[in-house]
Amino acid sequence: MTDIKRIGVAARYSDLVILGDTAYFSGYVPETSLGQSVQEQTRDILGQIDQSLAEIGSDRSKILQATIWLADIASYETMNEVWDAWVVAGEAPARICIESGLAHPGYALEIRVIAAL
Amino acid sequence: MTDIKRIGVAARYSDLVILGDTAYFSGYVPETSLGQSVQEQTRDILGQIDQSLAEIGSDRSKILQATIWLADIASYETMNEVWDAWVVAGEAPARICIESGLAHPGYALEIRVIAAL
Amino acid sequence: MTDIKRIGVAARYSDLVILGDTAYFSGYVPETSLGQSVQEQTRDILGQIDQSLAEIGSDRSKILQATIWLADIASYETMNEVWDAWVVAGEAPARICIESGLAHPGYALEIRVIAAL
Repeated sequence: MTDIKRIGVAARYSDLVILGDTAYFSGYVPETSLGQSVQEQTRDILGQIDQSLAEIGSDRSKILQATIWLADIASYETMNEVWDAWVVAGEAPARICIESGLAHPGYALEIRVIAAL
Repeated sequence: MTDIKRIGVAARYSDLVILGDTAYFSGYVPETSLGQSVQEQTRDILGQIDQSLAEIGSDRSKILQATIWLADIASYETMNEVWDAWVVAGEAPARICIESGLAHPGYALEIRVIAAL
Repeated sequence: MTDIKRIGVAARYSDLVILGDTAYFSGYVPETSLGQSVQEQTRDILGQIDQSLAEIGSDRSKILQATIWLADIASYETMNEVWDAWVVAGEAPARICIESGLAHPGYALEIRVIAAL
């Protein structure tokens, strides 16, 4: 039988769902930084991802794939300032960054990762 | 040798591709509900996903990751009415919902999942 | 211990990251075809993907999931001309194609795949 584990289960989605060695995260959004700068929102989201990774005994060096959706692609370089400082040297994940409309007008970005345990 | 299985193979894409315990779906689009409401299109797509999951001996409680692209983010709440009723309580997948341009002007949304067998 | 392998590691992202039998690619973008047609850019990107797949002992018949982001959804059919000729008959991946803003104004598209070894 397939053994699926979930963290942060709500009615609409779970924060993350684990199958075997692979953890699929939801899109993470700003929690404490709404209305603040792109840098602050990026730090907020990456901090939440760090925390969720720690909960499952993983860490940012084990991210396999990251998808970054920016509300405005003009934020690309300012987001990257925070991202580049956050990534573990030599252990960067596969990544893509695109612009899309986000669910809340106050979101400058949303980040989703797939990580290894 | 890596054993890959495919369901609904066409020239351009397969409906879903399986490696080990993990099934990667294509983006599913409205089939019988084109030109109808967001709710109808959402039901249509989720019904197709249910059917494909059944074909591989899985079901909606085993979805790991769901990505929802809305043609208009203003549809967020109406799509969620159908989504929330569809999700199995306590077994919600990781999810993200963003707005993007879709391949056909009649599509209100497109949904892609990764599921466990 | 989880064994992760990375190819093309840079400060910001790796070209691809492997866990077990699954390889997660970054979004691939035009390298030699900037400012050229959608067909040329598609050929350029798919050629890079072929090359990366070869480096890990895989090939285009083992792609599980492909995501294609077009800068302009009006390019859908011209991109598909190149895509359809490239896909291995009977072994098409799961796929989605949507329109999103891309990181560089010269990019007509960006493609990301998940592949089996």
